[in-house]
Amino acid sequence: MTELNPHFSHLACTFCGAQYPKDHLINLCPHDQRPVQAVYDTTGIQATQWYHPERKDLWRFAGLLPMASGFTSHGEGYTPLLDHSSHALAKKHGFQLFIKDEGKGHKDFGQNPTLSFKDRGMAVVINMAKHFGVAKLAVPTQGNAGDSLAFYANEMGIGAVVIMPDDTPAPIQGNVAALAFHNPDIKLEMIKGTIKEAGLLMKEKYLPQGYFNVATFQEPGWRIEGKKTMGLELAEPNRLSEQWALPNVILYPTGGGTGILGMWKAFDELEAMGMIDSQRPKIIAVQSAATPPVKNAIDKDLFEPEPTPAGETLAVGLNVAGGVGHFKVVDIVRQSGGTSIAISEADIAKHLSEIWQDKHWWVCPEGAACLAALKPLIDMNMIKPKDQVVVFNTGSFEKYLPEVRHLL
Amino acid sequence: MTELNPHFSHLACTFCGAQYPKDHLINLCPHDQRPVQAVYDTTGIQATQWYHPERKDLWRFAGLLPMASGFTSHGEGYTPLLDHSSHALAKKHGFQLFIKDEGKGHKDFGQNPTLSFKDRGMAVVINMAKHFGVAKLAVPTQGNAGDSLAFYANEMGIGAVVIMPDDTPAPIQGNVAALAFHNPDIKLEMIKGTIKEAGLLMKEKYLPQGYFNVATFQEPGWRIEGKKTMGLELAEPNRLSEQWALPNVILYPTGGGTGILGMWKAFDELEAMGMIDSQRPKIIAVQSAATPPVKNAIDKDLFEPEPTPAGETLAVGLNVAGGVGHFKVVDIVRQSGGTSIAISEADIAKHLSEIWQDKHWWVCPEGAACLAALKPLIDMNMIKPKDQVVVFNTGSFEKYLPEVRHLL
Ligand SMILES: [Zn+2]
Ligand SMILES: [Zn+2]
Repeated sequence: MTELNPHFSHLACTFCGAQYPKDHLINLCPHDQRPVQAVYDTTGIQATQWYHPERKDLWRFAGLLPMASGFTSHGEGYTPLLDHSSHALAKKHGFQLFIKDEGKGHKDFGQNPTLSFKDRGMAVVINMAKHFGVAKLAVPTQGNAGDSLAFYANEMGIGAVVIMPDDTPAPIQGNVAALAFHNPDIKLEMIKGTIKEAGLLMKEKYLPQGYFNVATFQEPGWRIEGKKTMGLELAEPNRLSEQWALPNVILYPTGGGTGILGMWKAFDELEAMGMIDSQRPKIIAVQSAATPPVKNAIDKDLFEPEPTPAGETLAVGLNVAGGVGHFKVVDIVRQSGGTSIAISEADIAKHLSEIWQDKHWWVCPEGAACLAALKPLIDMNMIKPKDQVVVFNTGSFEKYLPEVRHLL
Repeated sequence: MTELNPHFSHLACTFCGAQYPKDHLINLCPHDQRPVQAVYDTTGIQATQWYHPERKDLWRFAGLLPMASGFTSHGEGYTPLLDHSSHALAKKHGFQLFIKDEGKGHKDFGQNPTLSFKDRGMAVVINMAKHFGVAKLAVPTQGNAGDSLAFYANEMGIGAVVIMPDDTPAPIQGNVAALAFHNPDIKLEMIKGTIKEAGLLMKEKYLPQGYFNVATFQEPGWRIEGKKTMGLELAEPNRLSEQWALPNVILYPTGGGTGILGMWKAFDELEAMGMIDSQRPKIIAVQSAATPPVKNAIDKDLFEPEPTPAGETLAVGLNVAGGVGHFKVVDIVRQSGGTSIAISEADIAKHLSEIWQDKHWWVCPEGAACLAALKPLIDMNMIKPKDQVVVFNTGSFEKYLPEVRHLL
């Protein structure tokens, strides 16, 4: 049986700080409709065996997660850092370049079961749902999160509805449709529009039926906890450093931005536990030029992005016009001394094609957008000689194949 | 409106020769339960503009197909011949090696819409079904044929049921499930067992409901006509030869064997039309060691393969234990001076991995089996110096990815 981490203290609002009991199944903070997140007694954790480096999944950090034991792993997390220092710009400007590859597996490492970073969040969601006896979960999605939830729900015998735009890449639709075909407790809804319209349908049709909302930031901090492990993996001894340490720059493809909140939280918790110091990487929120709310808010120095219409992009994961956590993404990017860059469709395609020709790595359009951001960042002096730069490739092009096949 | 080719004369049994009118919607020959095939007035065709080399699909040969005009194309056929003469064995033994790539597309060529040779047969099936007003089609399949039928049926507004083993690769299941999800006229049945058990379910449950049987060889020669275009494409002026001519050896992954019957028929029709002479390539029926009925029949000098149990193989398309056309495959292989080779699972995996490392070509397990057959064929003196050798890669590994990902 899943057991909550005894050092998981309570939930707190990311905005007003209001506290809620850890077994309180809330969505957003009732006061201000902002996300909540888990708070730990880090001093208590320091005294435990919280780190299990022998595990080849994200549960190597179980002591810093909401459930410290009794969880079910499907091998998610512990992804490789690919050395890409042979990249022309890295050589020319003398920085170290690594790709944190959340997609296609590599031996000696873990393997996200549905080939994307979304599995980290959903692995925590499904274990928490199991613990609390939640019978039915609902998620509006641009694709990968729905694929992931459907996989875990099917594996763990929990009901789920996945609501996605009808232009989601065919392999993702197919994965969910195949699970829905075999398992009457898994449902798929296709809608016209984007994740926003998917969310509206969820609220109208599924929440009244008792489905629990696990949309980005709407669950009680569960997905942030899963994504936090990306930050922990960057910090732990690895090919970047033999000690606990952080890189200088992180390029992260930003749709909803859970990963940025999660990694930042990881760094704060590690600092509280004395594992790292107060130095932080520059966080670069990479967006699609088709839908750049975070970029616009940074440029205009806004506290919170303004409503933007969604665009059309090959990088479907970046097609998030309004995110309830965007105010926090903007805040973290600023605190870190980073910035936000918006990438054109032509550049996404070009860089996906280039890295395929160069390395035959299975980079997704969102990862390709980050590679395209290197050049402007160098020009802006955001990347300096000798920096350790980490680019997140959040998934595998495998799931976008019909759309990207011509680029390979 | 689809129109039948005026030079399409009648149907004839491949065994007893009994003739049937071309608009007779039969399955097997009622006398002996053997396949029927289309017969043309080749002299009449010779006088027409039957060849359309400007088209980038298999309809370039429309004058030699059952419908000469009014058909609907989805871009199928006209696949590239990849030059693989850099292969170690080709260099060492001095033969020319080409891969006829039915899978992943290449610019300047056609593109099988569901990434396999099955689209050639199903493109003819769907146009003939439309012409004759057949409302519902049924196919038992090891995978790719079902994916293909579901695609065409959905595109053309015809009903279909696809019956496949539940261990069919996930992307193929997903493709069909997604179509079934969106279109109530497309049905998917998953069964325990192989294509044999799928066929039994079709007969019990769907044929009584009025579905028309388009299993391999069970339709009135339609799929043979589609597959015939592989032979026509090898024969037409291409990178093998500037004239109409044939290669010396063809390695063909053999499940049901429709392609072997189709190519042989193509060569006979071209000879009748004076386009080529009576020389024929050696036909090599490449099988999986898990399920080698054709290989056994050749070895034992039988007229027809004995019933064999189906095995388990990554090359699911080769997992055909008993095929109604196998007697004809054995006959053609013998006439051609070729043979049959059975490949182990280890060799299929090894060769798929090798060509990926070497060329980054998207070869399917069935194609990899053919590459593995080169060595034994050289040892048997079936391949000689200066030969032009063509290996069929019948699909893309894209549709087998979960199973082959570790090989890449
Ligand atoms: Zn609050
Ligand atoms: Zn007959």
